[in-house]
Amino acid sequence: MKLGFIGLGNMGAPMARNLLKAGHDLVVFDVVQGNVDALVQHGQDRATAAATPAAVLAGGVDAVITMLPAAQHVKSVYLGNDGLLSANVKGVVLIDSSTIDPMSAREVAKVAGDKGALMLDAPVSGGTGGAEAGTLTFMVGGEEPIFNQMKPLLQAMGKNIVYCGGAGNGQVAKVANNMLLGISMIGTAEAMALGVSLGMDPKVLAGIINTSSGRCWSSDTYNPYPGVLENVPSSRGYTGGFGSDLMLKDLGLATEAAKLSKQPVPLGSLAQQIYQTFSMQGHGGLDFSAIIKMFTKK
Amino acid sequence: MKLGFIGLGNMGAPMARNLLKAGHDLVVFDVVQGNVDALVQHGQDRATAAATPAAVLAGGVDAVITMLPAAQHVKSVYLGNDGLLSANVKGVVLIDSSTIDPMSAREVAKVAGDKGALMLDAPVSGGTGGAEAGTLTFMVGGEEPIFNQMKPLLQAMGKNIVYCGGAGNGQVAKVANNMLLGISMIGTAEAMALGVSLGMDPKVLAGIINTSSGRCWSSDTYNPYPGVLENVPSSRGYTGGFGSDLMLKDLGLATEAAKLSKQPVPLGSLAQQIYQTFSMQGHGGLDFSAIIKMFTKK
Amino acid sequence: MKLGFIGLGNMGAPMARNLLKAGHDLVVFDVVQGNVDALVQHGQDRATAAATPAAVLAGGVDAVITMLPAAQHVKSVYLGNDGLLSANVKGVVLIDSSTIDPMSAREVAKVAGDKGALMLDAPVSGGTGGAEAGTLTFMVGGEEPIFNQMKPLLQAMGKNIVYCGGAGNGQVAKVANNMLLGISMIGTAEAMALGVSLGMDPKVLAGIINTSSGRCWSSDTYNPYPGVLENVPSSRGYTGGFGSDLMLKDLGLATEAAKLSKQPVPLGSLAQQIYQTFSMQGHGGLDFSAIIKMFTKK
Amino acid sequence: MKLGFIGLGNMGAPMARNLLKAGHDLVVFDVVQGNVDALVQHGQDRATAAATPAAVLAGGVDAVITMLPAAQHVKSVYLGNDGLLSANVKGVVLIDSSTIDPMSAREVAKVAGDKGALMLDAPVSGGTGGAEAGTLTFMVGGEEPIFNQMKPLLQAMGKNIVYCGGAGNGQVAKVANNMLLGISMIGTAEAMALGVSLGMDPKVLAGIINTSSGRCWSSDTYNPYPGVLENVPSSRGYTGGFGSDLMLKDLGLATEAAKLSKQPVPLGSLAQQIYQTFSMQGHGGLDFSAIIKMFTKK
Repeated sequence: MKLGFIGLGNMGAPMARNLLKAGHDLVVFDVVQGNVDALVQHGQDRATAAATPAAVLAGGVDAVITMLPAAQHVKSVYLGNDGLLSANVKGVVLIDSSTIDPMSAREVAKVAGDKGALMLDAPVSGGTGGAEAGTLTFMVGGEEPIFNQMKPLLQAMGKNIVYCGGAGNGQVAKVANNMLLGISMIGTAEAMALGVSLGMDPKVLAGIINTSSGRCWSSDTYNPYPGVLENVPSSRGYTGGFGSDLMLKDLGLATEAAKLSKQPVPLGSLAQQIYQTFSMQGHGGLDFSAIIKMFTKK
Repeated sequence: MKLGFIGLGNMGAPMARNLLKAGHDLVVFDVVQGNVDALVQHGQDRATAAATPAAVLAGGVDAVITMLPAAQHVKSVYLGNDGLLSANVKGVVLIDSSTIDPMSAREVAKVAGDKGALMLDAPVSGGTGGAEAGTLTFMVGGEEPIFNQMKPLLQAMGKNIVYCGGAGNGQVAKVANNMLLGISMIGTAEAMALGVSLGMDPKVLAGIINTSSGRCWSSDTYNPYPGVLENVPSSRGYTGGFGSDLMLKDLGLATEAAKLSKQPVPLGSLAQQIYQTFSMQGHGGLDFSAIIKMFTKK
Repeated sequence: MKLGFIGLGNMGAPMARNLLKAGHDLVVFDVVQGNVDALVQHGQDRATAAATPAAVLAGGVDAVITMLPAAQHVKSVYLGNDGLLSANVKGVVLIDSSTIDPMSAREVAKVAGDKGALMLDAPVSGGTGGAEAGTLTFMVGGEEPIFNQMKPLLQAMGKNIVYCGGAGNGQVAKVANNMLLGISMIGTAEAMALGVSLGMDPKVLAGIINTSSGRCWSSDTYNPYPGVLENVPSSRGYTGGFGSDLMLKDLGLATEAAKLSKQPVPLGSLAQQIYQTFSMQGHGGLDFSAIIKMFTKK
Repeated sequence: MKLGFIGLGNMGAPMARNLLKAGHDLVVFDVVQGNVDALVQHGQDRATAAATPAAVLAGGVDAVITMLPAAQHVKSVYLGNDGLLSANVKGVVLIDSSTIDPMSAREVAKVAGDKGALMLDAPVSGGTGGAEAGTLTFMVGGEEPIFNQMKPLLQAMGKNIVYCGGAGNGQVAKVANNMLLGISMIGTAEAMALGVSLGMDPKVLAGIINTSSGRCWSSDTYNPYPGVLENVPSSRGYTGGFGSDLMLKDLGLATEAAKLSKQPVPLGSLAQQIYQTFSMQGHGGLDFSAIIKMFTKK
């Protein structure tokens, strides 16, 4: 297929490379010229640069994937003066893999639909490691036939491709899951720190929790207490992994969506505040399991 | 073995019956005469009544199990005027299966040890259903050789018998696990309610969470959203299961232990307040997954 | 002076009537035709209607006051196709009395300044009662000379006219004050409910707090416990006053501003969640001191 | 009068000296011999030492004042083997000025009453400065005639002597007030830090809050932002004043009382957790207004 790709940052660049590897041709755009140059060079004759988002569509593409930092960039790339939707998008599939709030996703999808485009929101989890390895999870909202048609394309970049329902539901699934993740991680950190302060061995405590009703991904797969699991950020100084400031961003999206939906989320909201405090104290760059530092003496 | 058993309430009575079933003889005590009579009748000639906790030891027993509502009752039964430790307990194994704070457990264990008794704290999880079926989990603190010696005895009442380390650590494991459980349940309730309010199907959302990083026992085994799982309290009007007021009690123990240990537990503490609010609004008798009612419109 | 006035709802209409009373002529606009008709009729020959926000400026006015529900309406009225800033605004003073987030206020002020207008943000407190009586408090951000020049105009509608610093600072002052108000009100409600549940007389308790370090406006001027003060909403079934859903809106603005400013506000954020829960339980229309119902048995 | 005085620490010693100054004779006890020696020397021939709490009563005293760190010490001094209530206390007035939970206060008062003593709970506010200067506030629970009779005695140590109702109500008033104080202080810190981060001058912001509905003792008398007020701890590096760890203790008493009273106190509880975090991060010795450091960058 001939594809457009907009947003060639830490996530977008390896995703685009995986599309090239799968044999697709690309027309790419990024506001940073260096990102464009690197990708075009990598793609040899199969990747070309466009001067604006709208220009990505100029030569005719089957689908466009966008991977952008926040809702304001998505709105600019889709709805701006030289945006995708200023061009003829009739019948083109538009896949936004940015993580943004569901309301903005639906707002863009509505305009795209009105212009005859076929839009999917498809945020991912798995981080830059998953983007490189092509093992991302895609949570996809939009029309199911379009989802089925695009699934093979997404499989060039990811391993789990999950259909979540109508437009925006990919974003809903991601914010709901990640809010619960943030809560569970802090809960695990509190429980581990409390148990150890009361005299328990952290591995023994984790073992009990992991076979009991407190069991969760944060305790059995990504335990925040150093030394409990190997090959997780807590056992290498909280480097790598999923940054605390990214968790903070996702908790911000979740609480914003909750506010618009008139939904109380007291633990989600307090989790956001705890990550905000942690960030203010200078730790936003550490993996999000480092939040246990808020509950342990230095 | 000849055993003492003190505390024949909703949990203690079926546990004692399982000991009889396993062939042990019992000397029992309870402040409610009807509880004693029922058990003695059930035990036929193998269960006899004692007039005080101390009197349980009079005819010579190998071990005494206690199952009481709160720390004040444990202290009274062990340290009171006619309490267990007022009698000769040298070499007797004392197993307290009550759920109490770790500090009180250690205080009693210290006195017991000074008098030559061999004490274990062994709180359980699994509820009255597990007590009836003999499938409780025991989290056990105390000397490891005593634990090994008593393990077969506990297996007459439970399925998982887990060693947690020194005196009080059974209680530590239980409060840490249950605090995390309370947090995870509310977190799952918030995430499910938020996702559904934003337009997702609850089963689809649960399916995504359960294969993602938000996965936890509360989402994959005991989901609070009605209709997601069969045979859980949320699918039968929140009846049966583990009562909200019992979760409130355990969160109270966790935050109390955290206070004494100078440990912050912000999510644990807010979880306690949410269950307290739920109880004040008249729902303390419902299963603890009913907390989702705090996040959904009537 | 000849003035424009846009937004003739529950707050705007009485403010506009006070300007008429003070002798000013008005050109008015509202999306609800009935609101326009009522004001024009009230103003007799001194109030005329304009067909769009931009048209308010057509005949030449010295200043325009806007009073709108939320940031989206402010942006539409100022930045929209027929918005104020689509007309020639050179030298015109634009006063936005809407309560919106400081960032949006600054965004609009920037565009206005670029077009040569002189803009003030001037949110009010005092409610519809204060708007009717002309006793509002105005918290004003913008250039100080413009503030000084407009102060007499604002005094036709309010009693306290406070200068808060540069553009957006009126909004900052309002969200900071109202966040603290929401926190203090819930704190007072918790303290009163706790004291009474422990056996104290509410008037005695309020008397002690009001002469001690817990003293606050919510305890000494607007006490939420029924019967402590006369002539406050708590003593007339929580009718009148400042609605819970308005407090919820202001807490939403405060936490949003905090997020953008990377500032933790844990109590402010929990206060928002408590008002959101209260609203979901059907009480959003009651005065905001009714939040004490969350802490008292029915 | 001839008085007993038990507990000669940082608070008790200056209180006892003020009683001597007012012309009373003292029989004193403390577990630290140095404290006793210092007071006896200070009192010259008008202060004598007793070997146990009970011995304080031996020579006949009209009233005994106790000033102890926590409930466990109060129970030991009143209910222990050589405690006050082991002696003949018929007709003696016992005044406990310790700050403890209301339930413990009532438990001790009950035993005292059963033995014929006349007991008052009379916790204070005002800190060591108020104790030295004789300007403490006493919040007093117990029988009103006894209160009236003892008021002149308390006036030798304090300025405001407030009657709060039956036994334990002095403690209720103190925990309720101080919980609200802790909440208001954090709320003020959040509001000030938020406003300043959004570009406001702290003095201007405080001025607006102090004449608006956010006004509270923490904003107008003890503002936590450095430089807003003179002669408060925030303007001298948070030295002196009321220590963060003392506020943490009072919040612990409040949440404990709330738990026993089945009362939700979500903001009080979160305030406790924030002070606990602050203490764990090494700041427990600073004045409690230093909590603003949790909301400002270093």
